[in-house]
Amino acid sequence: MKAVVLLSGGLDSATTLAIALSRSFSVTALSVDYGQRHRVELECATKLTQSMGVKDHRVVTLDLRAIGNSALTASIDVPKNRTSDEMQTGIPVTYVPARNTILLGVALGLAESIGAFDIFFGANAADFTGYPDCRPAFFTAFEQLANLATKAGVEGKGRFQIHTPLITMTKPEIIREGVKRGVDYSLTLSCYDPDEQGRACGVCDACLLRRNGFATAGVPDPTTYRD
Amino acid sequence: MKAVVLLSGGLDSATTLAIALSRSFSVTALSVDYGQRHRVELECATKLTQSMGVKDHRVVTLDLRAIGNSALTASIDVPKNRTSDEMQTGIPVTYVPARNTILLGVALGLAESIGAFDIFFGANAADFTGYPDCRPAFFTAFEQLANLATKAGVEGKGRFQIHTPLITMTKPEIIREGVKRGVDYSLTLSCYDPDEQGRACGVCDACLLRRNGFATAGVPDPTTYRD
Repeated sequence: MKAVVLLSGGLDSATTLAIALSRSFSVTALSVDYGQRHRVELECATKLTQSMGVKDHRVVTLDLRAIGNSALTASIDVPKNRTSDEMQTGIPVTYVPARNTILLGVALGLAESIGAFDIFFGANAADFTGYPDCRPAFFTAFEQLANLATKAGVEGKGRFQIHTPLITMTKPEIIREGVKRGVDYSLTLSCYDPDEQGRACGVCDACLLRRNGFATAGVPDPTTYRD
Repeated sequence: MKAVVLLSGGLDSATTLAIALSRSFSVTALSVDYGQRHRVELECATKLTQSMGVKDHRVVTLDLRAIGNSALTASIDVPKNRTSDEMQTGIPVTYVPARNTILLGVALGLAESIGAFDIFFGANAADFTGYPDCRPAFFTAFEQLANLATKAGVEGKGRFQIHTPLITMTKPEIIREGVKRGVDYSLTLSCYDPDEQGRACGVCDACLLRRNGFATAGVPDPTTYRD
């Protein structure tokens, strides 16, 4: 059975890809170049597909800079060295307006185009404290939409499903899951603000969650931090 | 009050723009360059915003060719000279997988980014015989999603609304509505397969619906057809 896996090149999506493969799906990986600051992620995505034997990897270009207003796509500073409490409070400036709706929309188009009904997305518990479009209710609503929005859904050949296998996992649990499935985390990048060599800053929210995740999981962190 | 109007440069979206302006919205027009064959539409969109006094016009580039599988974006022939009965049957090859989900996703991102809650989209009755993502149920589902998917929706500062003012109109009714509101239809393009000078083929489904619409409305058709 075919599936589309959204693959940013980060730790979560790499683990999600490994899970989809372990469930015997024939996977098409989809990365979206949406003008993000951390574009070096896309190179990670390519290396991950090679390392995990995924032959079909599509990269869709979507220039979201025209809609602006996020620290990941506009010239707003990425917050650094926040405490765990600060991270739990409110919706961060790294939120990209309607990002996951757009990403899943593109994934849905690809799925329909290749005859897949299963879409994997690496959202998880650590995210949905902050991002509205990482919550289970959002994915349920998207699933309903998908089955109304498409020729394949309307013709009843199958039902689209959005799989979020990490949704209830903590970062250490995700890391342990990936290690079990042989994910090479040295190929992944989590940092919101890497340098040109792809070295992580070590102090943005994503780096702090990642560092803490490896430490708590008791797994050596293969990341090259510049700090 | 601010609104985002999806503006392809066709007859329907031009009329929708005129309706949004008549309701006193401060309009940001949004066109998406999704690698469509009929890219000359985008030039029409720009001329329309100029002619209707809309100062904020954003063009987002989204290369959907990587997901393929539609006559509008891939090398599948556009059907020509179909009868009205043939057009009513099934979902045409000009259907782009998940296109309206993606377009509305981008519009939602822009709306949130500029502080708008109102999105106008020119879907209409003539469309939803063929395209699943032009039906009222699809727009209702998208509205629900929008209010779950966004920071603005979750924080309850307003409720996103998808306005489809043409949804129950026939093509002649749309044309009469636009004429009443001063839309210059010579600036619009409906054809799925125009030549490089922007001249319409006259025989694809979109041209046939347009020609018949002007004839039935009793309005002179300003379109330059090459046939």
